[in-house]
Amino acid sequence: MYIVMGVSGVGKTTIGKLLAKRLDIPFYDADDFHPSASRKKMEDGFPLQDSDRYGWLETLANKISEWEKGDGAVLACSALKEQYRKQLQSIPKKEITWIFLHSEYETIFNRLSGREDHYFKPELLKSQFDTLEMPNYGFHINVEASKEEILDEIMSKLNKKKKPRIGLVGLGVMGKSLSLNFASKGVDITVFNRHVEELEVDIARNFAEENKLVYEFPWFDNLEKFIKSIERPRNIILMVNAGPAVDMVIESLLPFLEEDDLIIDGGNSHYKDTIRRENDLKKQGILFMGAGISGGEEGALKGPSIMPGGPENAYNRAGELLEKIAAKDKNGDPCCTHVGPNGAGHFVKMLHNGVEYGEMQLIAETYHFLRFGANATPLEIADLFEEWNQEMKSFLLEISIDILRKKEDDGFLIDKILDAAKQKGTGGWSTNAALELGVPLDTITAAVLARNISGKKQERVKAMQAYHREFKSVTDIQKISDDLFKAYKAGSIINHAIGFDLLLEASKTYQWELNLSEIARIWTNGCIIRSSFMEDLIDILKEKPSENVLVHSEIISLIKNSEAALTGIVGQALQAGYPLPVLSSAANYLLSFTSGQSSANMIQAQRDFFGAHTYERTDEPRGKFFHTQWIDN
Amino acid sequence: MYIVMGVSGVGKTTIGKLLAKRLDIPFYDADDFHPSASRKKMEDGFPLQDSDRYGWLETLANKISEWEKGDGAVLACSALKEQYRKQLQSIPKKEITWIFLHSEYETIFNRLSGREDHYFKPELLKSQFDTLEMPNYGFHINVEASKEEILDEIMSKLNKKKKPRIGLVGLGVMGKSLSLNFASKGVDITVFNRHVEELEVDIARNFAEENKLVYEFPWFDNLEKFIKSIERPRNIILMVNAGPAVDMVIESLLPFLEEDDLIIDGGNSHYKDTIRRENDLKKQGILFMGAGISGGEEGALKGPSIMPGGPENAYNRAGELLEKIAAKDKNGDPCCTHVGPNGAGHFVKMLHNGVEYGEMQLIAETYHFLRFGANATPLEIADLFEEWNQEMKSFLLEISIDILRKKEDDGFLIDKILDAAKQKGTGGWSTNAALELGVPLDTITAAVLARNISGKKQERVKAMQAYHREFKSVTDIQKISDDLFKAYKAGSIINHAIGFDLLLEASKTYQWELNLSEIARIWTNGCIIRSSFMEDLIDILKEKPSENVLVHSEIISLIKNSEAALTGIVGQALQAGYPLPVLSSAANYLLSFTSGQSSANMIQAQRDFFGAHTYERTDEPRGKFFHTQWIDN
Repeated sequence: MYIVMGVSGVGKTTIGKLLAKRLDIPFYDADDFHPSASRKKMEDGFPLQDSDRYGWLETLANKISEWEKGDGAVLACSALKEQYRKQLQSIPKKEITWIFLHSEYETIFNRLSGREDHYFKPELLKSQFDTLEMPNYGFHINVEASKEEILDEIMSKLNKKKKPRIGLVGLGVMGKSLSLNFASKGVDITVFNRHVEELEVDIARNFAEENKLVYEFPWFDNLEKFIKSIERPRNIILMVNAGPAVDMVIESLLPFLEEDDLIIDGGNSHYKDTIRRENDLKKQGILFMGAGISGGEEGALKGPSIMPGGPENAYNRAGELLEKIAAKDKNGDPCCTHVGPNGAGHFVKMLHNGVEYGEMQLIAETYHFLRFGANATPLEIADLFEEWNQEMKSFLLEISIDILRKKEDDGFLIDKILDAAKQKGTGGWSTNAALELGVPLDTITAAVLARNISGKKQERVKAMQAYHREFKSVTDIQKISDDLFKAYKAGSIINHAIGFDLLLEASKTYQWELNLSEIARIWTNGCIIRSSFMEDLIDILKEKPSENVLVHSEIISLIKNSEAALTGIVGQALQAGYPLPVLSSAANYLLSFTSGQSSANMIQAQRDFFGAHTYERTDEPRGKFFHTQWIDN
Repeated sequence: MYIVMGVSGVGKTTIGKLLAKRLDIPFYDADDFHPSASRKKMEDGFPLQDSDRYGWLETLANKISEWEKGDGAVLACSALKEQYRKQLQSIPKKEITWIFLHSEYETIFNRLSGREDHYFKPELLKSQFDTLEMPNYGFHINVEASKEEILDEIMSKLNKKKKPRIGLVGLGVMGKSLSLNFASKGVDITVFNRHVEELEVDIARNFAEENKLVYEFPWFDNLEKFIKSIERPRNIILMVNAGPAVDMVIESLLPFLEEDDLIIDGGNSHYKDTIRRENDLKKQGILFMGAGISGGEEGALKGPSIMPGGPENAYNRAGELLEKIAAKDKNGDPCCTHVGPNGAGHFVKMLHNGVEYGEMQLIAETYHFLRFGANATPLEIADLFEEWNQEMKSFLLEISIDILRKKEDDGFLIDKILDAAKQKGTGGWSTNAALELGVPLDTITAAVLARNISGKKQERVKAMQAYHREFKSVTDIQKISDDLFKAYKAGSIINHAIGFDLLLEASKTYQWELNLSEIARIWTNGCIIRSSFMEDLIDILKEKPSENVLVHSEIISLIKNSEAALTGIVGQALQAGYPLPVLSSAANYLLSFTSGQSSANMIQAQRDFFGAHTYERTDEPRGKFFHTQWIDN
């Protein structure tokens, strides 16, 4: 519903009629709805009182409701006072577009004076200006321009007030943060959360209410109305728990969706589910993207790293919306790119989390050895980490410094936190994928398994007692800090090399044509594993996109410079009784990867011995298989 | 078809008639089928010549085919010569039961002399005894007993010749070996293999043919006939490739199965598939067991270790058959036990293979360090391993010794075998299960990943060159042999402890009530990971069935005595450039497991920092969760 308002002579009827024509909806003039008594009064020269207007406004309000059930209408009506306008609001406020035509008194005066065929009463104009309460909403249009220009201005404002291009389902922590992020970037978004008595009560309503002073969120707990509120073709982003919930929500959306609508799954879904869903929905004409989103609550709010995978036409349409809310890299480009088809986005996000597991454990075990093996205080360790982070610029190292410095009462909070972690679901997915694709994902796997063993707190304490084990300080922080830094840095590089190697293999197997350099770039900001090394990886992976990071010349010299420290620290710590699972596996990976001759000739011989599995030979071409009768029966 | 044969006067007609009555099938006397010319000849006192008999035997052979199309018959026929009997064989040999009535000449002579109503010619009896070629098949029945006793004896022999109790589907290497194993243990077995032109041609027929001199295998390439050939309720063992093939075979069996028939899947199926299949088949009244079978080709033939899981009534029926073919432990008990319900058997077999991966890699990396780091020859390493194996009595160590000693031309075969292994499918299943159940399966996982990295042969060679890496001898075999043995032994113990820990957790999660001691017992022979330590584990796991093996007092002192050697060797090798992935992970596991304080307090703090995941505290009860605002915004 469009109401063109303003004082007499401002051009309500002229502009209103043109607008109605342009929008292809009916035009009405409010003056035509006055009751005959009021008309008589006006013809007799008496001004109308508010009491005269009450019934008329009531009639108009009813008409507005009626017109709105059709295609709506344009109504020209002076509506000078807020109270008149309130009375006209028989339909939700957001469904009325107020177009307030205005200008200076003099301009109108001159314009009216110039009309030859019009009986002009200057005192009436004066009284109208006195009565006018300007609305603080709607479009304010100055009428000094030409009719065509005025109309263009209105149309351009109307276009901006189209239905939101995106809707979000699921107002959990991440969903809320993303919605606020969209709104803050000027992307209109409509939000949905189911309403379940005693479980999820008024989530959407409350969210809209809490934020109404800053942003206007059209909110819904009715799925059909929610979907109808989104501009077609629709973009709908799901922020629901990975797993069966995603399938259930998709099922419930389907009856209301139309061809070319797009669902974006922004949760941590398994890439194989994403492949399946994209495939199933394609058959029904619905587009589907799986978009990994990293950055935690704060990232979601201020700018996460986004890894969308799916059909190209889907990204071409919705990519710009995601790019708007993504973090920006150092060149100001969004940390969001079209990762590849179907499950590619969720695979890349899964591996991001895998690398994160490795990086977290690297810091944790380094801290552990310093804390107990070198008897360092949390503050000393924090200071050391801060030194390291001048170079590393690692987000995880940065928060670890804050963690180590966090005091509580007379001690440090870190000393009071229970040392039992878990991994479930996403934790081991990278390892599962690596096992399936034949990739040696050593560091990431060691980190995942380290969480499992940490979880056995009770058993560990019992075993410690049974073994009469106690931590002994075997060195001090000064003595080992240089080597430990080299070891840590090498461990981190190897962990990244391993992670990108899995992406390489997945890209080949699934024909995703992943751009690893671009993936490194969108990981330089917003996400949890951002660091200065990630910046370096952009170039390294651009230069040799299909090689293991470890054979890049810069990396070789870096690693060669650190290898002795890495193996030395591992040896020293193990012999002193301190486990370093990720550093150990990094050392083993490095040595295995750079050994032209592995130990697997023995494995192949054993397999041929007991299972007749055959083997290949070094002096024969690959693909030729041999079997030996190892003993005479 | 039953043919009662023997000399005149032995009682063929009397016994044949009684037998026919008992079996409720017709009786025929061969003498009634002589042509009139022969009858005349005999009446005239001339003995029949073989030429006279030819047409008569032909007639009988045709009759036998005809009778066999009905319910069969009992035929009394002297059939003294093998050539007569051959001529009668118009139907498959296995379908004729020969009942040879016999006694001493004197007995028959006296019996015939005593007959008053019979014209007796002693010279005819003499000539019959001269002509008689005793068959080396069929039932040989001495007729000195009473008619009733003779009939009972025949019936009891007939009952023993019931249909086979078990049928085997899939005559691959393992299927053939198992069939021969069953047959050699006196278990009648019927075998099936599909016949597919150009792909699987006459597999079953050829297998039966090849072995016919030793065993009689009823063979089939028609599924319906195969199933009908098995005694009800049927036991059918599948030896087909794990995966979809198992489902396909089950589907094809179903139309011919009857309630209470039992399918045993003897392949390496995934335990979750086994759980699903058992569940699906139960609904159709069909029993299902998943039986892991370890021992390779030789084990299958001579006695494997068998790990059957499934419903108790299924094991109660078919268990004795499996126990007959299983290896025997040192007390002579079968290396086969009812592991537990549904997927338990296949889970245990999977973990057996996981432990096997760990043990193989332990030997391989020990060999590798000795070969290159200590510059030892294969023979020197074999001698050292032989010393170790006095104590270890490990099958894998034993075959490794043979492998190392295997010469080829002027060198050692081990040096010519390509050092690239793979893992696919079963390899990583234990790790997947551990990730799902939250178990730290470090050594097994490291062994699996070591195969992955070995598989990157080309990349490794390239990386070696890029790093200018070469193997340098850093020690000699004498110097490190003691420590290396301790390290190897500790590594093996830890690998087993980790494996059994996964069984413990699976048993809890799936409510399988696994008897770990019993599982160790059935692994003491037949299977690939048999060793003297497995014998020790029977008692260790009996004593404390729900504790990690590492906290058993004997193990503690063993490990304490080896720990310095383990961590020392790892440190030494890594620093010299030799990877020891499984020994490293064993060391890290040991140290982590015996550390009351892990590094995971840092992990939990990080997770709470960036994801508000909360943490528990050491000074508060478990299950109480805390969140900290780590920095002031």
